[in-house]
Amino acid sequence: MSDVFSVIDQQAGLFLAELQEFLRIPSISTLPEHQGDIQRAAEWAADKLRAAGMTDVQVFPTPGHPIVYGAWNGAPGAPTVLIYGHYDVQPVDPVSEWRSDPFSAEVSGDYILARGSSDDKGQVFANIKAVAALMQAHGGKLPVNVKFLIEGEEEIGGANLDPFILSHLDLLRCDVAIVSDTAILSLDQPAVIYGLRGLVYLELEVRGPDHDLHSGQYGGSVHNPLQALCEIVAALHHPDGSVAVEGFYDTVRPLDAAERQAMAQVPFDEADWKAQTGAPAPWGEPEYTLRERIGARPTLEVNGIVGGFTGHGSKTVLPAKGMAKISCRLVPDQDPHEIENLIRAYVAKITPPTVTSEVRALSHGHGAMVPIDSPAMQAAVRAYERGFGRKPVFTREGGSIPVVATLSRAFDIPVLLVGYGLPDDGLHGPNEHFHVQCFYRGIKTAAALLEDLATTRLK
Amino acid sequence: MSDVFSVIDQQAGLFLAELQEFLRIPSISTLPEHQGDIQRAAEWAADKLRAAGMTDVQVFPTPGHPIVYGAWNGAPGAPTVLIYGHYDVQPVDPVSEWRSDPFSAEVSGDYILARGSSDDKGQVFANIKAVAALMQAHGGKLPVNVKFLIEGEEEIGGANLDPFILSHLDLLRCDVAIVSDTAILSLDQPAVIYGLRGLVYLELEVRGPDHDLHSGQYGGSVHNPLQALCEIVAALHHPDGSVAVEGFYDTVRPLDAAERQAMAQVPFDEADWKAQTGAPAPWGEPEYTLRERIGARPTLEVNGIVGGFTGHGSKTVLPAKGMAKISCRLVPDQDPHEIENLIRAYVAKITPPTVTSEVRALSHGHGAMVPIDSPAMQAAVRAYERGFGRKPVFTREGGSIPVVATLSRAFDIPVLLVGYGLPDDGLHGPNEHFHVQCFYRGIKTAAALLEDLATTRLK
Repeated sequence: MSDVFSVIDQQAGLFLAELQEFLRIPSISTLPEHQGDIQRAAEWAADKLRAAGMTDVQVFPTPGHPIVYGAWNGAPGAPTVLIYGHYDVQPVDPVSEWRSDPFSAEVSGDYILARGSSDDKGQVFANIKAVAALMQAHGGKLPVNVKFLIEGEEEIGGANLDPFILSHLDLLRCDVAIVSDTAILSLDQPAVIYGLRGLVYLELEVRGPDHDLHSGQYGGSVHNPLQALCEIVAALHHPDGSVAVEGFYDTVRPLDAAERQAMAQVPFDEADWKAQTGAPAPWGEPEYTLRERIGARPTLEVNGIVGGFTGHGSKTVLPAKGMAKISCRLVPDQDPHEIENLIRAYVAKITPPTVTSEVRALSHGHGAMVPIDSPAMQAAVRAYERGFGRKPVFTREGGSIPVVATLSRAFDIPVLLVGYGLPDDGLHGPNEHFHVQCFYRGIKTAAALLEDLATTRLK
Repeated sequence: MSDVFSVIDQQAGLFLAELQEFLRIPSISTLPEHQGDIQRAAEWAADKLRAAGMTDVQVFPTPGHPIVYGAWNGAPGAPTVLIYGHYDVQPVDPVSEWRSDPFSAEVSGDYILARGSSDDKGQVFANIKAVAALMQAHGGKLPVNVKFLIEGEEEIGGANLDPFILSHLDLLRCDVAIVSDTAILSLDQPAVIYGLRGLVYLELEVRGPDHDLHSGQYGGSVHNPLQALCEIVAALHHPDGSVAVEGFYDTVRPLDAAERQAMAQVPFDEADWKAQTGAPAPWGEPEYTLRERIGARPTLEVNGIVGGFTGHGSKTVLPAKGMAKISCRLVPDQDPHEIENLIRAYVAKITPPTVTSEVRALSHGHGAMVPIDSPAMQAAVRAYERGFGRKPVFTREGGSIPVVATLSRAFDIPVLLVGYGLPDDGLHGPNEHFHVQCFYRGIKTAAALLEDLATTRLK
């Protein structure tokens, strides 16, 4: 082990202050009014890559949000490691439920509180600082070649990353990729994720009358589109919690006994679940454990619903239409486009003749699996052990990171999911936060991993 | 017949211009930011009552919006007629669907287009102008005593009107009341309404986790509260369109054969329904005609629904809660408080242990029936015949005007529903409008009714 850890320890406070700067840029990718902040966040990240010693740094425009690239290729013969992250963040509504301004990035106790602190600015910045610290510890050199790919459309299922990767294969070519955009089990129990779910995100709109009606004048003779929307949404699940869309499970690769056994060893009981969610009682497919339902089974969720009068007080309107946002987390070997088509067909079939419905697809992403026994994966295990002081467990993750499949297919390489968040970081909700020790241990783990990969036979 | 009709004809253009003034005050009762407009509309109406010759005009403050009162008691021995209306209007969202500004009150072709034009400013103002014209035609006197009661909380099921009436019984005492806040069948087919529905307006909130979650981290293990809300809402109706709430129909007074026959004579077929609603196909209780479903049967409608992420794009949130606004139109002898309790009990019963639910009541109003063969009703029939040139039909109305029951009970009097709107006026929706000829004929009908009531033996 080099003295990179002491470099990191010496500058930890400075690194944290820099992260606060990053978090104070409200780079919400889904809201057009934050376009300027998106650009600002991209430029900020590019500056930090230059400061870390990357020699070829560029901010590439795309039809959507810019992609930040930076590379240092000064270690001929050593492997090339691509590090992926994203600088965009989720919206902050309901903002009233935040304990402090989502973009003030206050450090309070053990945590830094901010939108994007865990997902993903804190994690990608840990990698940037790991490289900066390695550069110092190794006298202006790195043990491997490093390329950064930092995008700004992760939270909107952006359509521009895959085309960028596929049209810049030479620029991005690498032997292994690292993605830090996931959670470990706890501060003292790191985890390596070997399976990720895919995603398809849809909007379902139901229309009835061609304009809003007075409920007293027409109610009882018109199929209320909000009621019809509820009927259709309710029919997307069976009463036991399984998805009712015909064919939904047809291509699901079954969980084998060894995998179920491995998952059962990861501690997660109903008390953990309850503490993290605050929900009254568990729900879902009864033949699977809570951990399996979350990580290893496909799901269908209603992310939002709206229609009619939703303001203060009462309005006796019979609305013309209603809309629900629906997304599915997919497991191997479900194809997001095929699932979209199955849902489309099922919704069309159950839509009664008294209303009309439309399904619109917003984004698609494939899931991914990384072999546990691959040399790169074992390097990740050793790096966590050094960075967190404890051997990581293996787990499957419920979230979806489509770039994992894209990189793995484009370069035929292992993609390591080396995350530093915690399960209760509050991603996508109010009061997102990042444990300061996760940040520091994350920097160390990332640095250890790059040192380890320098001597790992990847194939 | 006096020459009041020629007075009205001579000043018709002036009356219309004054109505435009009234309509340009955006007196939306449900939105706090229009509080000043509410006050302005009340003062404007009070000024017009003074101009019409009312001698005792007052704007009474209430804990909510003010009540406008005006009286002329210069006909001792003649009956006292109370005229009710409201100066408040519905919100205008979705404002993008309006052909012109909802408060520019443009006259285009046969129509005046504005929020409140038909519901109810145009109709209450027709009564004010009828009194003004009578005053002129009769040399500064009226054939009956007249009292106006014009409120500002009709569209929010305001809690302040009933207490005001019950605490001002002497001031408001009358022999008959007129309410112009309903629709006739067409410009050439007036209608007298003899039955009105009651109303109960509720909010249903469903909660799951105690904060918004990441759908990939917890989806499949948490009962999504939006899905649960949809399941509960879907379970409020049976598949045949009847309301599934246990006990909902228990107190409904059955439609007798004579009434069904009378309703069948009012022309309203599927083509009319389709033209007015633009909906794909009729819906509702199969054993009742469209007209019966609308006017004579109780209904349960979803007026609004909201929860989770509803903005542009995608956010993979598993929301903490969802809310639906639900209202019931009630028929004799359903009690709105009892129906609220039935819904509350039913929702509690069908809410699964995986979420929690809450039902909040926003307003209650009783339905009303007026005997067709009463002398006052026959006076209304004659007045329509004079004002519109055609004998009206009798019908039941789907809407709810709780003040009808209140006035009828407080003074033991007939309350006449003498409306001047048309079925397709677009109440509560975009592009609400009022036919200019309805306005003119309404003024004449109102004047004719007051003249007629002067010589009608009411008891």
